Amino acid sequence: MSETSPANPVLVEVVRGTLVESRHAGAIAVADAHGRLVLALGEVERPVFPRSAVKALQAMPLIESGAADAFGLGDDELAVACASHSGDGVHVEAVRGLLAKAGLDESYLACGVHWPVSDKATRELIKARRRPQAVHNNCSGKHAGMLAAAVHLGLDPRGYERPDHPLQVMIAGIISETCGVRLDRAGMGIDGCSLPTWSLPLSALARGFARLGTGEDLAPARAAAAKRLIQACFAAPVLVAGEGRFDTMAMRALAPDLFVKGGAEGVHCAALPGLGLGIALKIDDGAKRGTERALAEVLAALLPKARSALADQLDGEILNWRGISVGRVMAGDGLRGALDAFAAAPRRQAERRMR
Amino acid sequence: MSETSPANPVLVEVVRGTLVESRHAGAIAVADAHGRLVLALGEVERPVFPRSAVKALQAMPLIESGAADAFGLGDDELAVACASHSGDGVHVEAVRGLLAKAGLDESYLACGVHWPVSDKATRELIKARRRPQAVHNNCSGKHAGMLAAAVHLGLDPRGYERPDHPLQVMIAGIISETCGVRLDRAGMGIDGCSLPTWSLPLSALARGFARLGTGEDLAPARAAAAKRLIQACFAAPVLVAGEGRFDTMAMRALAPDLFVKGGAEGVHCAALPGLGLGIALKIDDGAKRGTERALAEVLAALLPKARSALADQLDGEILNWRGISVGRVMAGDGLRGALDAFAAAPRRQAERRMR
Repeated sequence: MSETSPANPVLVEVVRGTLVESRHAGAIAVADAHGRLVLALGEVERPVFPRSAVKALQAMPLIESGAADAFGLGDDELAVACASHSGDGVHVEAVRGLLAKAGLDESYLACGVHWPVSDKATRELIKARRRPQAVHNNCSGKHAGMLAAAVHLGLDPRGYERPDHPLQVMIAGIISETCGVRLDRAGMGIDGCSLPTWSLPLSALARGFARLGTGEDLAPARAAAAKRLIQACFAAPVLVAGEGRFDTMAMRALAPDLFVKGGAEGVHCAALPGLGLGIALKIDDGAKRGTERALAEVLAALLPKARSALADQLDGEILNWRGISVGRVMAGDGLRGALDAFAAAPRRQAERRMR
Repeated sequence: MSETSPANPVLVEVVRGTLVESRHAGAIAVADAHGRLVLALGEVERPVFPRSAVKALQAMPLIESGAADAFGLGDDELAVACASHSGDGVHVEAVRGLLAKAGLDESYLACGVHWPVSDKATRELIKARRRPQAVHNNCSGKHAGMLAAAVHLGLDPRGYERPDHPLQVMIAGIISETCGVRLDRAGMGIDGCSLPTWSLPLSALARGFARLGTGEDLAPARAAAAKRLIQACFAAPVLVAGEGRFDTMAMRALAPDLFVKGGAEGVHCAALPGLGLGIALKIDDGAKRGTERALAEVLAALLPKARSALADQLDGEILNWRGISVGRVMAGDGLRGALDAFAAAPRRQAERRMR
């Protein structure tokens, strides 16, 4: 490739003994709904694939089309439509329920098959001498939601995953409008679950999440749809990821102050409705270890309750196979310095908003 | 931490569609037994933890003490003492055999417990409603080898894993002498399996592997021990890692021209006896994806047969859950340029050696 290397700072360091053993560089954007960047660390204008971080945007047609009302979908079904789920029983049930209400079955899912993210679910399948199915794919809820929207809109449910299917064209429009950025077909990739993933800058993703969380600068119907999806995720955070996972734990502890969704390859986005802010970050190397650690730091700097809610992530202790403490995952100096400098500003802004 | 960020080049790029989605920076040293660097890409003098990459050095006392002869150890047992094994039946058997010959049992293993690296072995345990044991730990062969050496040397086998145990002091001396570098206690960390891991620069590791592969600049007894361990790994490459894994596949195809051993957090070392060279590389973020791709490129530049033997690694195609090609793991421009420039030189050197 002819691209130059990104000049991103080290956000997270992995320390063993007294030595930095590994490091994760990346970029972070924090923006308001008008696109004003309150934090820009690293190359925030460089396009990234948001992957699963924008599942709530991809689920918008399910609400906006009227499908959710027509099919009588509940919080669990809406939350799993926004999910990268663990494939546990609760997720599989919600996906099957969503499909059934739309008059479809699992054979329509185009997401492909992988073993459940959840070790527990994987072990249960193995003990039962069963193989995973498409419904266990972490994206099956998103696909089920798209299928329900397609059916309700009178579109052919077969081929719903293709970039030129009217549903995907509609979703591209929603992402473009919400994030305030033109999407370029040349910057489209195909995701692990076979859906299109549209590259866009972290700055635009952060703005989109600020809008998603506040409804500001969105048409009323879209603002209402965003609110309904986020409320569903707040009501059923375990459906959005799974037990023991970052997004579930963070929203359990911090909703309604935080909506958060991770994607593959080190992308993570969040909306902080009370502060009117959105966050988007990408770790260059794609490691979840770096992504979640960096996001926990940003959240702790912005939300006073996050420091205790995310205490384990912020502690970062590394235990070896005998439970001996051998190291620590830590914020890099560049990240910590940037956060110390800007933490006070958004709180002042929020205080102004509340007056 | 007060360390500055490393200025390492991007060695490997992960491309989706037309965009570089993720990237792995790192450093590579290729040296001869006298420490002459024929390639130095990135910060090769920065200390790294070699982790499991130096298991052959950690197994030296097993040969040098006479334990291997006294206990009548075969190739499988010596290879598994140098291994990060998959925990399949063949590995567990070899480790148990090694321990039994030394008059010990699994209760002496201080490596801790994890599920087997091998999915197949994990599934077999689950189906049998069993939990993994210390013998399944990928390091159990190394620990068994250390225990056998300790017993033969008349040392207390309990506590063999501690940095001050005479066996670990002996091993630190072997690493120091072989790599030609002074080890600093302040630069010691504790590994995942509870053994000490001593930090040293990639340049020294590369020199150490050149010596390991050729015996040059080593005392005769050490050169003979190195040869015996490497020959055992060549005779039983599946014992060193496992089916489908890089080190096993590479040595199956390329021995006796290549001895290769990976470690955690993106370290990988290799010896190329025919060329008189050693290789040591470290990916900054610790990702195996970057490590194995970068090493495959270096090997392909140095060993003509490696290009076909490692064709899959060098192709790097990324398939999604439905088997659709969505991207590629590729050498970065910096790595490719550096390799193109230097590939001819070592071959010329080798031709001189053979005259």
